[in-house]
Amino acid sequence: MAKIRVIQYGVGPIGAGMVRLMLTKPGVHIVGAIDVDPNKVGKDLGLVAGAEREIGVKICSDADAVLRTGADVVVHTTSSYLKSVADQLTACLSAGLHVVSTCEELSYPFRKHPELSKKLDQIAREHKVALLGTGVNPGFVLDKLILTLAAACQNVTKATGHRIVNASTRRQPLQAKIGSGMTVEQFHEQVKAGIIKHHGLPESVGMVADGLGLDVARIEEVIEPVVAKERVKTDYFDVPAGKVVGVRQVAHGFSSKGVVNVDLKLEMYLGAPDSADTVSIKGTPDLTLAVPGGTHGDLATAAITVNCIPALFEMRPGLRTSKDTPMCYFPGALSR
Amino acid sequence: MAKIRVIQYGVGPIGAGMVRLMLTKPGVHIVGAIDVDPNKVGKDLGLVAGAEREIGVKICSDADAVLRTGADVVVHTTSSYLKSVADQLTACLSAGLHVVSTCEELSYPFRKHPELSKKLDQIAREHKVALLGTGVNPGFVLDKLILTLAAACQNVTKATGHRIVNASTRRQPLQAKIGSGMTVEQFHEQVKAGIIKHHGLPESVGMVADGLGLDVARIEEVIEPVVAKERVKTDYFDVPAGKVVGVRQVAHGFSSKGVVNVDLKLEMYLGAPDSADTVSIKGTPDLTLAVPGGTHGDLATAAITVNCIPALFEMRPGLRTSKDTPMCYFPGALSR
Repeated sequence: MAKIRVIQYGVGPIGAGMVRLMLTKPGVHIVGAIDVDPNKVGKDLGLVAGAEREIGVKICSDADAVLRTGADVVVHTTSSYLKSVADQLTACLSAGLHVVSTCEELSYPFRKHPELSKKLDQIAREHKVALLGTGVNPGFVLDKLILTLAAACQNVTKATGHRIVNASTRRQPLQAKIGSGMTVEQFHEQVKAGIIKHHGLPESVGMVADGLGLDVARIEEVIEPVVAKERVKTDYFDVPAGKVVGVRQVAHGFSSKGVVNVDLKLEMYLGAPDSADTVSIKGTPDLTLAVPGGTHGDLATAAITVNCIPALFEMRPGLRTSKDTPMCYFPGALSR
Repeated sequence: MAKIRVIQYGVGPIGAGMVRLMLTKPGVHIVGAIDVDPNKVGKDLGLVAGAEREIGVKICSDADAVLRTGADVVVHTTSSYLKSVADQLTACLSAGLHVVSTCEELSYPFRKHPELSKKLDQIAREHKVALLGTGVNPGFVLDKLILTLAAACQNVTKATGHRIVNASTRRQPLQAKIGSGMTVEQFHEQVKAGIIKHHGLPESVGMVADGLGLDVARIEEVIEPVVAKERVKTDYFDVPAGKVVGVRQVAHGFSSKGVVNVDLKLEMYLGAPDSADTVSIKGTPDLTLAVPGGTHGDLATAAITVNCIPALFEMRPGLRTSKDTPMCYFPGALSR
């Protein structure tokens, strides 16, 4: 079988991880790369992505030119906000390319962006390609795992999900991003400014609600600091008791009667003792599923995105989500 | 949206469970039922299935007549053996009906029945319908959950699955079927005679191997008795120490070099203290997923089969498996 020709759109840390992973898959041929960062434009993608070798693909800022090179799929990793990337996605789809994107708001965009969702769906269908937003969270642990578990249920009345990440073992930028070392006041200011915020929880609530047929009329999000009870040290931070070590973010899906039907919680903080992803269904029967230790955010986002590449060719054209995807591993070579 | 019109093919204990579940789904309309048992033919399906009410559908032994009634989907629950049901499935597909079946050998039939698989795939594609074999095991806990978990892995080298079922809480026929109360010699005779045997482990090994791109050249199955260390009492059996309380069945997928790449184990015995479904991936990263308490065999088989009904309309026509299915819950009414 022919290799799948892929364009990497966005070569930040996440995109670079995708590239390194794709280089291990014999069924994938990276044919182009788009990024606007002047420090990257013109350089070899392999080197910029940390693959420690040239791969003969130069990073280019002219998206339209790259999209015309002759490819099958775009792996898109530029922004969390759907409005910011709508033109980029439209250009990819209009070039007749399937797209898998880590844009968090694309993971289940129908509630927040109903018009834009319709438009993107239409463009994808016109060009007979699939547009898929996915990743580990949103896209997998707090939505797809719930839907998958619910396949074993005869009846479902409520869904909960809880992801605990020990940020001590993660990259410095992530440790900084969750407010490590801040005072509680600084943390709240950063939340107000929209700087401390994980994107995608309401999207996961929406996917779970629709997938399980649960009444969710209103979604509420709360972002709180996790405060150190004792000193916490990592390679990058030394946080005394009373200062912030991370974030607790909750999204509740309320029914029209005010009942919480979907309840998702994400905790990312330094020194979290019990990293795990746990999802539960109330129904017939009640079921719980746990991934002890949890799925590693960076590794898993790259894995899930790249693993979804073959599925793009199997899905109905249009705007699709993890809900529609028979998530599986992509061995690399294509075979049955 | 119109209701999905379903024919129930086979009204044994499993089929009856499907019927009772489908009667709770407003999006499903049961329009026919096929069974050859003279004790059931001519009777109302609702009463025979234990729904405690008539539903206006008479069980009929003339399959062809029922298949011509005007339906969309057949829920098929007649036998574990693909050869025994090939003609039944062919008739359903030729009538232009999607089929979801609990026939264990259909769950991933490509290794054991390559010719028949091709033929059924061709017939389904000719009639533009999907043929899907699924259930809880095979079809979910020891294959689909492994594939789903592997979506979060960058690289996979080995897969294991372990299902422990406490048979004390299950139906009397199941407790009898696993050899409860037998001597070890009696048990081995029943295994030799093919009477004590869970169907579907090699099929799960095949699905996992192909889905994960693992080299599995040979599949070996071993069936052993679990022997009571002390007296075990249930509602139906009173087993002294030294006698059999159930079965331990293992399927190993060996690579061409003799390495076990897929390792599945099913234990069903009276008094099992720790019912659970647990699957693990060796790879980047290693991951484990557990369903503490395990998925209930009877409830989950009905659930998974009925929950797959809407997916039949979305899948590419042909012979499909759980691997190709974005397993989800079917809320009952069709939406989105």
